[in-house]
Amino acid sequence: MKKYEIVSEKLKQDILEGHLKRGETLPSIRQSTLLFGVSKTTIEHAYDRLILDGYIKSLPQKGYVVDILPQHLKHHQVQTATNQKEDSWIRYDFRLNSVSLEAFDLKIWKRYMKEVFQDSKAMATYGDAQGEKRLRLALSEYAYHHRGVLTTEKSILVGSSFQTLLYQFCSLCPKTYTFGMEKHVDSQVLYVLRSFGFSCVQFDSETLIKDLDSSSIDIFYINSSCFGSDFRYLDRKTRDALIDVSHRNHFLILEDDYNGELNYRSKPRHSLQGASPYDNVIYFGSFSRLLLPSLRLSYMVLNPEYLQRYLNHKDKFGPTSSKFEQLALARYMEDGHMEKHLRKLKKEYAIKDQITRTILEDHFPNLIFKEVYFCYCIDLPHIDPNQLMEASFQQGIALDPLVDHTLSLSFAYMGQNELIEGLRLLVKILKRC
Amino acid sequence: MKKYEIVSEKLKQDILEGHLKRGETLPSIRQSTLLFGVSKTTIEHAYDRLILDGYIKSLPQKGYVVDILPQHLKHHQVQTATNQKEDSWIRYDFRLNSVSLEAFDLKIWKRYMKEVFQDSKAMATYGDAQGEKRLRLALSEYAYHHRGVLTTEKSILVGSSFQTLLYQFCSLCPKTYTFGMEKHVDSQVLYVLRSFGFSCVQFDSETLIKDLDSSSIDIFYINSSCFGSDFRYLDRKTRDALIDVSHRNHFLILEDDYNGELNYRSKPRHSLQGASPYDNVIYFGSFSRLLLPSLRLSYMVLNPEYLQRYLNHKDKFGPTSSKFEQLALARYMEDGHMEKHLRKLKKEYAIKDQITRTILEDHFPNLIFKEVYFCYCIDLPHIDPNQLMEASFQQGIALDPLVDHTLSLSFAYMGQNELIEGLRLLVKILKRC
Repeated sequence: MKKYEIVSEKLKQDILEGHLKRGETLPSIRQSTLLFGVSKTTIEHAYDRLILDGYIKSLPQKGYVVDILPQHLKHHQVQTATNQKEDSWIRYDFRLNSVSLEAFDLKIWKRYMKEVFQDSKAMATYGDAQGEKRLRLALSEYAYHHRGVLTTEKSILVGSSFQTLLYQFCSLCPKTYTFGMEKHVDSQVLYVLRSFGFSCVQFDSETLIKDLDSSSIDIFYINSSCFGSDFRYLDRKTRDALIDVSHRNHFLILEDDYNGELNYRSKPRHSLQGASPYDNVIYFGSFSRLLLPSLRLSYMVLNPEYLQRYLNHKDKFGPTSSKFEQLALARYMEDGHMEKHLRKLKKEYAIKDQITRTILEDHFPNLIFKEVYFCYCIDLPHIDPNQLMEASFQQGIALDPLVDHTLSLSFAYMGQNELIEGLRLLVKILKRC
Repeated sequence: MKKYEIVSEKLKQDILEGHLKRGETLPSIRQSTLLFGVSKTTIEHAYDRLILDGYIKSLPQKGYVVDILPQHLKHHQVQTATNQKEDSWIRYDFRLNSVSLEAFDLKIWKRYMKEVFQDSKAMATYGDAQGEKRLRLALSEYAYHHRGVLTTEKSILVGSSFQTLLYQFCSLCPKTYTFGMEKHVDSQVLYVLRSFGFSCVQFDSETLIKDLDSSSIDIFYINSSCFGSDFRYLDRKTRDALIDVSHRNHFLILEDDYNGELNYRSKPRHSLQGASPYDNVIYFGSFSRLLLPSLRLSYMVLNPEYLQRYLNHKDKFGPTSSKFEQLALARYMEDGHMEKHLRKLKKEYAIKDQITRTILEDHFPNLIFKEVYFCYCIDLPHIDPNQLMEASFQQGIALDPLVDHTLSLSFAYMGQNELIEGLRLLVKILKRC
């Protein structure tokens, strides 16, 4: 956006919102030059644009006067109204980024936030760059009990997101490193690694262990909750083979344990970090799917080598995660609420999973289940995506757009009754399309 | 830390905190192997270490029994007590990282946090990767009124810290770029740029404009609140010359406007972004010194070129800053509290600055003033740092360690009376050392 456009947009906004009314005179070009701190030419351009777009007119002796076309005002009113209720048409939400708050007790969480409020000294001081010690202590206990991660608070780094921590981790690696990863790796991960200039080699999940045995990568990234072409939790056999080949071939494993503790259908199993007898795993955990998605909190467990590298550069890093939320979470975990909440979540998701599968299975035999994303994927090669979206919209059903003819349906957001109704309605629509 | 050390540390902690009491039997080696998910050898190592360190003993027929040396318990009690009151000896705090909360009305801030709490829908959904639109709108107004930054909310990116945003910015730059910066640049900035593999050229502040004119850098980083050897706000003349040479020589300016709005002694002046008639400045602002230091919130204003680069890769970035704090801050700003707070802060710092200067000037004629860090620096070539620290500690005065014989004294944290007392006491100590 050019400078004159910014100025004209600001003035349009003022006119649309009624701060400048029809018939009022705008500041002169000279006055506006001072007001906006831009050149005379820029203001002239901006005023010309406003005349052209039908917001003001130039009158002899009077200068520039507001004279807005009625359709602009109408459009503005409609848009404001739509923005305010943009989601109000939604009765059934199958989108992946929605999360259920049913199981989450906001009251309890508020209590802990209030507790932290009372601690003015904590609020008035900068946080520890590595994360608040109190939270790191709670995390070391938690990661041990739920994911078998064996560590102390000294090796834990807290950050505002997985990506932020990945940036910090990358800055600890020599530029010459080669990273390996699965073919269907998350594009955000690939983007960060490439932006640091690391070489990236992608592996086929089917032949992963064999191929890794003859490769010369330095680090292998894996999302251990979403492995292979069927997006499963990494099975025990592959996990142990991966630990082994990493040790034999001297490469490090970056374990992204996204929702690893949320196994509501699979059997629980240890993380790679917990299962490995060597120091060859760096572990990443995060909470955005467990607690409030608006909460930005992730953590990374370093091995001795990378902890030393980090400590050598500790003064180069600042805290990235809200101290307030860190301390609230620490207290919440200390009192055992995380455990309780996790149990509730598992129960809730297990039931919703069962409901969804039961209703869809009859009609779509080739369902793909992605446990970690709380969703079922249906292949719909013969459907017109626009028709489907339009028909769903009419019934108040919110869907993510199809990707390669595949529809992903998340059961995370809705309550059980809503879910049953929504699924029945959606099946009808899909049969018709 | 080795695996066996982690296990033995965990057990030591359990013993010290009384979860395992004197005379109690520890789990057998086989049981512990299952419990900790580690090998038999690791457990054996850990138990041997506990015996060696005097925490347990091995008894025939009974197994491993807790038998802790009394001095360990004593030491633990003392340490716990010290940790709890680690700062209780401090009566006068001159350290740079402390911030005054006197001027900050926590009550008002809590009110806005509570308001956001009521909005369950906002809490239950992921945030916008670019930052909440409502906050970006408030920021565009704020940056315009206080720093002359001309932009709309579309070009603003919110992040959890300056460093996080710098990582994101760097990932938008080609690997072949060369960055320029002043000689005394912050080491965190240099570290991030180098970890991406960019070449970095450091310039002398005295001959900056001339040297830039004949250089071939792509981007120049500047902390415009702390320029040159005397750490001043960038003066108007150099600012305009910098804008000019950047335009002529086709390099971009990265303006780190740290505390730019907090001029309690200097005259206000526009930011580089606001003063430039071209699109050659990327602007960074942050709030850690204005609001609660525990709040992690910064923002970056992109120019059209980099905005386009960002939008091309928008799906590669996730939100890094707490949505909760973003929305609370947006409401706080909308209602004009930021303005009021800023006015209060300026008044408070102006008075404390005056007090500090008046008391120190008589004794130390070569004082250096760093406005943006709220501190005075005193050169003390003939003083024994250890003696000074010891004497200050005795009087309850907290100081940052001397750097190159220079003592930095921040007047940000203490109230006015406290400050006067503390300064008088400190001057006495300095005269004696």
